[in-house]
Amino acid sequence: MKTVLVPIAKGFEEIEAVSIIDVLRRAHIDVVVASLDGSALIVGANGITIETDTNIHNIHADILDMIVLPGGWDGTNALAEDANVQRLLKEMDAKGKYIAAICAAPFALHKAGVLKEKFTCYPSVEEHIRIEGYQDDRAMVVEDGNVMTSRGPGTAICFALAIVKKLKGEEACKTLKEGLLATYCDASV
Amino acid sequence: MKTVLVPIAKGFEEIEAVSIIDVLRRAHIDVVVASLDGSALIVGANGITIETDTNIHNIHADILDMIVLPGGWDGTNALAEDANVQRLLKEMDAKGKYIAAICAAPFALHKAGVLKEKFTCYPSVEEHIRIEGYQDDRAMVVEDGNVMTSRGPGTAICFALAIVKKLKGEEACKTLKEGLLATYCDASV
Repeated sequence: MKTVLVPIAKGFEEIEAVSIIDVLRRAHIDVVVASLDGSALIVGANGITIETDTNIHNIHADILDMIVLPGGWDGTNALAEDANVQRLLKEMDAKGKYIAAICAAPFALHKAGVLKEKFTCYPSVEEHIRIEGYQDDRAMVVEDGNVMTSRGPGTAICFALAIVKKLKGEEACKTLKEGLLATYCDASV
Repeated sequence: MKTVLVPIAKGFEEIEAVSIIDVLRRAHIDVVVASLDGSALIVGANGITIETDTNIHNIHADILDMIVLPGGWDGTNALAEDANVQRLLKEMDAKGKYIAAICAAPFALHKAGVLKEKFTCYPSVEEHIRIEGYQDDRAMVVEDGNVMTSRGPGTAICFALAIVKKLKGEEACKTLKEGLLATYCDASV
């Protein structure tokens, strides 16, 4: 079974986090939702509180196939400042394992030095990362090497489907896309 | 301020519930997330647990502008069987107030006898409601009188935006649609 870590911190964007967790679990991927400080409950940017599975302290890169970061500015800043998240991102990258981030969260990848040349993010967040390589609205999901990035709440289901395609194959992605009624996902998925 | 009730029960569909709550709160609508039995934490169909604000026992139709039901089969069946949900749906309908449901949840409206002639729902759920009036994939969101219905996880953001349009106007909906990067929502939104 594939294992994916989704770290969340206060102020995470709820549609993004929940779309990723929900879609990946539908694809029978083991999703571990981790807090940064052991809190059982974490409140998002829009006041929705969700329960975590574990503390990120307990997680080693060896057991992971992928790490996926949801956006939201406050949540992203916490992920960018957290020593465990930054260490795991660097370890995953060194091992050539998959890393993904959506909305503001590519900033946390940039902070860890793992973002590749081409990327996307929520419009204007690129000003805090770099203009060069920013793919604007050319695709809902951008892949470069082992790093996948996406744009915002409206692309979160498509981003999760692109992750399913990567970890479980094209057929699993196609079946889920139809089941979710997410036919609008673009050719990048 | 507009007030919207979102009742959730074990097995609710997480993308649908969270997309509705998130988008409506972004539009400065007061969203009350209610359990059916006073449970603080409710687990969804894909193992995501979210926190409720109150027990539905505490809610009267007088304070509400709208009631919105997320889908998920187990959650929907609980909403269809719950005396408070069924009473509130009938009271809201009698007062001509807005009622909305997505995915499997139009079944709970049918159970309360408040579904109007035209509706949509998750494909195949219409077999448990009625074929006549089912709008298939003609639109992401169907309105008939005071009742709004939608199809599934992939249409949840668009459904929430249609609710924002109804309660806060076209301009608020348009601004949010752009901010969420949900440009794919169809003309029904």
